[in-house]
Formats: sequence, structure tokens, C-alpha cells
Amino acid sequence: MTIKTIIGSSDFAEFLRGKAGRFLLCLSNTKTANIPGITQAGIPGLLYLTPTLDAEFLCTGEVRSLGTIAETPKGVPTPGLITRAVHMLHPFSVLSLLDLGLEVKPKIDYFSLYTFGINPSSSIDNGADIPATDLFEKGLEFAQEYLCNNDYIILGESVPAGTTTALATALALGYDAHDKFSSSFKNAPSDIKQTVVLKALSTCEGVDDLFDKLSLISDNMLIFNAGFVLGLQKRKIKTVLAGGTQMAALLLVINSILKQTEQSINSHNLALCTTKWVYEDPNSDIKGLLEMVDFPINAYYVDFDFSLTQHPALKLYDEGEAKEGVGAGGALMYACLNGVTKEQITRKVESFLQ
Amino acid sequence: MTIKTIIGSSDFAEFLRGKAGRFLLCLSNTKTANIPGITQAGIPGLLYLTPTLDAEFLCTGEVRSLGTIAETPKGVPTPGLITRAVHMLHPFSVLSLLDLGLEVKPKIDYFSLYTFGINPSSSIDNGADIPATDLFEKGLEFAQEYLCNNDYIILGESVPAGTTTALATALALGYDAHDKFSSSFKNAPSDIKQTVVLKALSTCEGVDDLFDKLSLISDNMLIFNAGFVLGLQKRKIKTVLAGGTQMAALLLVINSILKQTEQSINSHNLALCTTKWVYEDPNSDIKGLLEMVDFPINAYYVDFDFSLTQHPALKLYDEGEAKEGVGAGGALMYACLNGVTKEQITRKVESFLQ
Repeated sequence: MTIKTIIGSSDFAEFLRGKAGRFLLCLSNTKTANIPGITQAGIPGLLYLTPTLDAEFLCTGEVRSLGTIAETPKGVPTPGLITRAVHMLHPFSVLSLLDLGLEVKPKIDYFSLYTFGINPSSSIDNGADIPATDLFEKGLEFAQEYLCNNDYIILGESVPAGTTTALATALALGYDAHDKFSSSFKNAPSDIKQTVVLKALSTCEGVDDLFDKLSLISDNMLIFNAGFVLGLQKRKIKTVLAGGTQMAALLLVINSILKQTEQSINSHNLALCTTKWVYEDPNSDIKGLLEMVDFPINAYYVDFDFSLTQHPALKLYDEGEAKEGVGAGGALMYACLNGVTKEQITRKVESFLQ
Repeated sequence: MTIKTIIGSSDFAEFLRGKAGRFLLCLSNTKTANIPGITQAGIPGLLYLTPTLDAEFLCTGEVRSLGTIAETPKGVPTPGLITRAVHMLHPFSVLSLLDLGLEVKPKIDYFSLYTFGINPSSSIDNGADIPATDLFEKGLEFAQEYLCNNDYIILGESVPAGTTTALATALALGYDAHDKFSSSFKNAPSDIKQTVVLKALSTCEGVDDLFDKLSLISDNMLIFNAGFVLGLQKRKIKTVLAGGTQMAALLLVINSILKQTEQSINSHNLALCTTKWVYEDPNSDIKGLLEMVDFPINAYYVDFDFSLTQHPALKLYDEGEAKEGVGAGGALMYACLNGVTKEQITRKVESFLQ
């Protein structure tokens, strides 16, 4: 299991070998996820619970907010299984949660759950109704005051329907992202995702201001983190965006904000790391998305897969059914940098499903 | 190997995953251990050496104060083997010793050995003769001045005959603890432990004051740590009591002191962790003891056993011959929280006996 460079150089990752990393999980709901068939990230009818359950499972190994319906994530192969496995095999120095607009707060004690008074956003097909400038500034301010005495931050996310809002955001900002996100958008006009994104784009017609566009078509995670990541880079805090095309979209949002405000970023301390499943996905193009970013960026993927298991729920990953989320790619990078093996991760993930 | 919750929630333990923990070993002699047949915790005739040898072995891997008699702990399956194994596989951030009344000081250089001018206590069958108020205050003061720059403290003990003094203490304080400590007390009237405890209780007849009772019937470890743990909680220093029924008795002592002084404790940062052998012991009831504590407490056990070894001395643990001590339960929790496996611990403990 090794870290492969998508763009940039391996030095950023290698410098972090053996160093102390903390994991921040961004949790958010967009009502876009309530559109039937828009996402498979969760339990049908309970999709809004996904970030809550991901947070609970990552921190405690238990799924609590489902009540008596289910006690284990069996049959719900969230990528959070991978992140939890890494945390058990070589724990993150700190594990904290950012509530960026949750329907249901996770039932967790002791762990830091940062709150910012952010509400879940509305569905982008009718305008997301996000106070974008305010959210961006909250992210900037949080970065200014955030105490990080570890060597780097791994920033993950759990946002159901987040790739839909990320795609819509990238398109609304003028990036040629059509064939670079999930393939479902390339399919027949009846495709739900395409319909939603087209409807969302129509709400932006005639809107010029960047933040006005983001208010209509984006999600809380992207807007808050645009501020948070920019603020962290001003403080030169090494940051790994742990995710795939959503995190690439975050870089595009940052790119657009910098252009509009005629500012620049020292991106020397910023990287992205995703999974092999995202990198090798024939229906999306994370490298293409990253190449549209004007500042230099280091981007990696880890060549972990589930070839060492026979578990059918995990084999779905290798078949392309699930690819990334809950910071799985960044967690795998952290595992690589600390001597954890593919075999160990596989066995640990299997143990969650027994 | 996982951490199981006895009472409370898993969050306290999970929050400490990967965090830096220091191990403090409390060492004490009570002359109660000189009563023939009262304890098996050590070498016959040399029982008073047990805490000294445990300290030496835990810190250095060598048993020094036995002179030429023995160079290894072979045949003496102290639970300190487990704690030492954990320390070698994933070292505690700090390892320090507290001399709470030792007959023989351990022969150790470099490691901190805190001393408080405490003498070994007398046998409880004739009055333990402990300056209890003074000892309690020494514990409180030590907590106030103790510098801890790690995330949590694991507090273990080595006190031969300590379960006898713990049982006598719990009974003297009015707790219904008869069937909750070791089974030997439930046996025939000839049973040595029962005889000693009954005689000890008779010394307390007519004694009303809590500290006067403790002076007669308890041991230094319980009284000093009642102050120490209370003081640590005032400073919100996360503390894991690493032990079984003795550490439960410590909580009962704290409980009684709080009641008498009409004070309360914020126990949010306090937990207990013991071994599977204590938790599953059919002849004692640690959960029952913990439920008599009036403040909320998180308590855990680790499901480690010696099923992976064939070594006869270690198999004695699985047969119930030895259960806990030298902070083995807390050390196993620390192992779990840092990705150490049952297999690794088993092989390491075996290596000590070769």
C-alpha cells in the first residue's frame, strides 16, 4: 500500500511521515439529499442521518442515532469503516467534529463538536438559501482562532448528496466540469442528478456575484471550508483535504474566490488525498478537476483496495459502488505514513461487519 | 481485543484513543500480608517484596531485590507481566512510582519515585495504625502540585493483601460488599480472610468517625489515593483507575468522604478499567461494587485472556488463579487505544517466562 502522486510532488506527503496528524470531520446536511434517487450515501428514508451516524461510528465504534433499527453499520458500507479502522490501528492525535448544519446532532460525549449556528441548507433545485458570505467568514475566523499543536490537519467530510452540490457549484462557477464528476450526469436526460443540477443552474441565471451564486447552488461544507482552508494556509498549517471530487470542488471554490478578490494563496502547505477508487473511476476525472486550479497543489491517492477480502459488502468498493467519504483517502494516507498495512486495515474493517 | 463497558459509556475511553497516557504505580505494604495464607500475591515468606519487585520489573524488566534467589519472575505470574508487555509494545509516556509505605525501596535509577514519608501500615486484625487524615491530605496536596502534561493518568497499584484490606474497608464504611469481593470470604468460618476481616471489623466497633475507621481497617493506597484522585478531578485531569475490586473500593472510600463532608465530585474525567478475569469472576461482583457509588462513573474491562498461549503459568489466569494487579486492566485499555493486539501481548508476556 503506497501513496501515489496525482499532481505535484511526493515531498509534501513524505515530510509528514510519522508526524502527528489530527482528523477533523465536517458534517452537513443539504436537503438536496431528500430528492429521491439522488444519492446512495445512507439508508433510504434516513439519508439525513448519514453524517450523524458517520460521526458516531468514527468516534465511538457505535451507531447510536438509529435507535433500535440497527446497531451496526452492516449492509451500509460507509467509507467511514476505513477511517475508523485506520484510527484504531494508528489513532489520529485528535479527532474532532465540525457541525456545519446537521439535522441531528451526534450522541457523543468528550469529543469536541464545534458549532457555528449553521442550519442545514435547502435543496439546490429551488435555491440552497445559504448565507454564503457569513459562512465563508465563519470559516476564516475559525481558522484564525483554531489551536492546532499537531503537525497537520486531515480534513474529511460527510455530506449526503455532496457530489451533486459540488458538481453544480463547479459548473455555476464556470468550470468545465461536466465529464469530470460522476458519470451519472453523462447519462440520459431522465437522469435525476442531471435534472437537479440543470434546475439548480437555472436558479443562478443572471446572478453575477460569486457569493450570491454559492448561496443558491452550493453546500455549507464547501463554503465554510473555503474560508477555513484559506485561513489555515495564511497560518501555514499543513492541511490534507481528505476526499475526492468534492474536495477538488472545494479547491475550485477557493480558486474562484481568490480570482474575484484578486488575492493569492501560498498553497505550499496544502494537499489533497483520495482513494484509488476515485482516481481510477472511468466516469470521473479528479486530475482534470485539479488541473483547473490555478495555484500549485499536491494531490495523491492511496492504492488501497479490498482485494484481500471476500466480504461481499466490501467487494462493492472494488466494483465502483462506493468510492470515498468520511476522509477515507486522507485516512489511508495517514495509515501509509505510519506503517499500517493493507492487510491490517482489511482485517479491521472486516471485524466491523461480523 | 476490545474495551467493554461495565457502566457508563464508551466515549471516555474512545476519546483517549491514541492519546498520551502516563502510568503511576502505587506501592505499599500492609503487615496484613504477613498473616499466613492471606494472599498468594508473591513468594511465600517474601510477600512484602512484591510491590518492590513489581516496580523493578515494570520499569526495567529485571527483578533486582531478590538477590541471587531468582533473576526472573518465572513461576511468579504477576499481572505486572502484562503491564510490562504493554509498556514495551507501546510505551507509556511517563512511568513513575509512588512509595506509599514500602518495606524495601526498589533498586531503580532515573525513574521518579515519589516519597511522602509514609510507613507500611500494620495488620488490620490489630488495627492498621494509619494516620489517615494526614495521608488523605498528602494525596490531595500531591494532586494539587503534580505536573501532568499528558492527556491522562493510569493509576495502578501493587499492595499484597490489598483485596483483604479493601474488603474490610468497604464493610467498615457500611457498604453491602460481602458477596462482591473475593469468594474466600463466603467460605467456612475457618477461612483465614474472613477471620481477619471479622477481627478487623471488631476493632472498629464503636468508632464513628470515617477517618478513625480508615486508620484502623484500611491501607495506605486507598487513603492516599482518595485524596489524590479527588484532587486530580478538581483539576479535571483525566484519570483511569487501573484495577479491579481494590479500585472499586477506592471509589467507595471517596464516596463516603464526599458524603461525610457534604461535597460533590465532577467525575466526568474519571474511569476505572479492569481485566476480563475480574469482570467474569463468578465469586466477586465489581459491577455491584461500582453501582454502590453515588456519582456517575465510567467503568470498563478489556476482553484479553491467555487463550493464545500454551504456557501453564499463564493458563492459570484463565483458570481464575490470578486476575488483576500492577494496573494490568488499565494497561490493557491503553494497549487497545493504541492498536496493540492480543497476539502481540501474548508473545511478549511469553518471552518474559523463557
